[in-house]
Amino acid sequence: MESPNTNQEKAGVVGRVLAMPKVVKQKVFDICRLTKDVAQDDPRKVIHSLKVGLSISMVSLFYYYQPLYENFGLSAMWAVITVVVVLDYTVGATLGQGLNWTIGTFGAAALGLGTHHLASLSGATAEPILIGAFVFMIAAIASFIRFFPTMKARYDYGMIIFILTFSFISVSGFRDDEVMEMVHKRLSTTVIGGSACVVISLFVCPVWAGEEFHYSTANKLEILGDFLEAFVREYFKISKGESEDNKGDSKDILLLEDYKKVLNSKSIDDSLVNFARWEPGHGKFKFRHPWYLYLQIGVFSRQCAYRMETLNAHLSSDTQGFQEISCTIQELCLEMSLESSKALKELGTSIKTMTRPSSSNRHVANAKVTAKCLKSLLQSLSWKETCLLSLISVVAVASLLIDIVEFIGKIADSVNDLATLTHFHSNDTDKSFISKSS
Amino acid sequence: MESPNTNQEKAGVVGRVLAMPKVVKQKVFDICRLTKDVAQDDPRKVIHSLKVGLSISMVSLFYYYQPLYENFGLSAMWAVITVVVVLDYTVGATLGQGLNWTIGTFGAAALGLGTHHLASLSGATAEPILIGAFVFMIAAIASFIRFFPTMKARYDYGMIIFILTFSFISVSGFRDDEVMEMVHKRLSTTVIGGSACVVISLFVCPVWAGEEFHYSTANKLEILGDFLEAFVREYFKISKGESEDNKGDSKDILLLEDYKKVLNSKSIDDSLVNFARWEPGHGKFKFRHPWYLYLQIGVFSRQCAYRMETLNAHLSSDTQGFQEISCTIQELCLEMSLESSKALKELGTSIKTMTRPSSSNRHVANAKVTAKCLKSLLQSLSWKETCLLSLISVVAVASLLIDIVEFIGKIADSVNDLATLTHFHSNDTDKSFISKSS
Repeated sequence: MESPNTNQEKAGVVGRVLAMPKVVKQKVFDICRLTKDVAQDDPRKVIHSLKVGLSISMVSLFYYYQPLYENFGLSAMWAVITVVVVLDYTVGATLGQGLNWTIGTFGAAALGLGTHHLASLSGATAEPILIGAFVFMIAAIASFIRFFPTMKARYDYGMIIFILTFSFISVSGFRDDEVMEMVHKRLSTTVIGGSACVVISLFVCPVWAGEEFHYSTANKLEILGDFLEAFVREYFKISKGESEDNKGDSKDILLLEDYKKVLNSKSIDDSLVNFARWEPGHGKFKFRHPWYLYLQIGVFSRQCAYRMETLNAHLSSDTQGFQEISCTIQELCLEMSLESSKALKELGTSIKTMTRPSSSNRHVANAKVTAKCLKSLLQSLSWKETCLLSLISVVAVASLLIDIVEFIGKIADSVNDLATLTHFHSNDTDKSFISKSS
Repeated sequence: MESPNTNQEKAGVVGRVLAMPKVVKQKVFDICRLTKDVAQDDPRKVIHSLKVGLSISMVSLFYYYQPLYENFGLSAMWAVITVVVVLDYTVGATLGQGLNWTIGTFGAAALGLGTHHLASLSGATAEPILIGAFVFMIAAIASFIRFFPTMKARYDYGMIIFILTFSFISVSGFRDDEVMEMVHKRLSTTVIGGSACVVISLFVCPVWAGEEFHYSTANKLEILGDFLEAFVREYFKISKGESEDNKGDSKDILLLEDYKKVLNSKSIDDSLVNFARWEPGHGKFKFRHPWYLYLQIGVFSRQCAYRMETLNAHLSSDTQGFQEISCTIQELCLEMSLESSKALKELGTSIKTMTRPSSSNRHVANAKVTAKCLKSLLQSLSWKETCLLSLISVVAVASLLIDIVEFIGKIADSVNDLATLTHFHSNDTDKSFISKSS
């Protein structure tokens, strides 16, 4: 019994050893493809990497040039540390971390100097004990403050730097009698490193968190619009003409998956808005751009996406006897969804191009009117005994679509507020619509 | 016109100045209350803060004691930095960051030494240029690798430390001829700092990410169960007896809001599972605990929560003429929801206590049977013209509840898998049920 087993094992081991170069080759190939994918997906990521390399090499100049080195000595290393930790992908993140770093460092330096002074008054024996007690207290308090929700969101980083610098300065102070000079060096290298980051991040191909947030919000609306269009086509089994049928179907399936990106977008939104708030005015965005409206649009978009998740489950539900019943509702559902889809896409484009939405108000109004019609149709019809099971699905779908229309109305309101507050360019069509409706 | 305005302004300024102490008092009071809330909410956070203070003071010993200081010199500072950055709230996070820190430091040290050796071969003029080029290249490549999704999730931290240490060592190498000794000191202080973190995090009141994840998963199920129970009571306007009516109502409203915590739980789940995977076996959890099953339960819980979001909107919907129609469905919906609710709560308790779910299978089976009954009831009934508008709401609610039952079935399956894989204790009731059903 044993011999074939061991033979097999041996063969397995030999096979695996022989396959090694192949496996390694495959791994290398995978990594190359991943690299290409990431770089193609967003070439700015490549630029960011080059920026990091450039900044660190630049700051290393302190080491290369004798006169600079003599001024700062080992403290110059802090400039390198500052660059590595502060320089981030977006301008907002870099500014936020830079500000945190600066506040943390200066605050800790002041407190550290005070502690050092207090401790040095107390004599040689008590000094280390006092400093130890101070470090323990301040570190514990600062760590606890990190748990406060508001601090966690915006100043977590600064608190870490605070603890770091405080213990650094108060503990080094015990050895280094020229503590003032050390603090001075530490602060100036930090400022130099930080300024290098800010300058490079602001002026070399800047990536603005605000812009990212702006476009991702517009994108979300377009994704939702695409879903609605694809969904009704799929649910009511409507083909889009003979020729492009197959091609269209596979595209629809892709569109039906995209809304999942919106479902869990909250954490990304929250971090982007946090960064965007640090950013100065740039391009079409002023300093106090109403980012809270984007958050609102995000909330409503997610509400739509939750309902789409439920809708999606209905695609696979049993639709026997479906054709007979639903044709009456089908038309209205279809019109409502297509109008909603158009409104969403128009709103998305409106945000993207920062022009006033020209026809979305009309589409939303149409969708709302159709929703009303659908409700009254359901009210006025008397259903015979025919297959109520499949009616459940149709009624549930109709009800979800009506819900979605309501949220699209809210999205449209938010976009209109945004357009008013930030003075979107207006189109002529829009003006004529407004004058007509008023 | 101007004088009353300026007077008002003056009064406003004076008022504000007079109100200052009050405002400050209020702020201080707010902060105190927040501190109390955070501390009461989770006393382990206070303990964590004390742990951080303790570790930093401990590591500062390197500075206080002359013999230790003479061995390590300024490098001892790295031990403090390591502690501040590595020590995190949960054991898993500390171990993960510690491992990242160690791998990053050692990898960078090796590469830094190699670079230093290569550059020193090239002569005095070329050396700084070569080192600059190496730093640029390595920093750029490492920053780019940080964008890879798999690296971002688990090794982001290590990459930052890698860049930091590499530039530190290769750049310092240019000045410091005893580069080997510096690297040696740097590594030993890092190891000392890291070990201090790991020891304190593991042995002083440890907070396990795995345990947090375990209980938060159980909690989610209980929240969903509570929602279902409160929802049907609220939707079908069922009071729970005269005496506790008012008290019950306000409690119900709270229960109807809790599911929102589940909606956006994905990012928390992802980070907890990332930390939990670093943790060694502890208490009831083995090293390779099937955390993926918790992730699965999380996915299904969120699917339920999405539908609850839609259900919640129906609470405020128009329910005129509601009583007449829905009483037929009401009973079934109620039974189905209550069985589901019981199943969810039982599953939650089962996870919490790590005992085999004793009656949840029965409750899920009951809920499924009731869902089938509900479907066939809808099929067999012939609806007269009475108020189809409110029927939409009822049918939509019923359909959503049926959907939820399906996901609860999946949750029960996952929990059963978990019970089998991790050998939950079994109850006698359970055995008798299994033997009956098989």
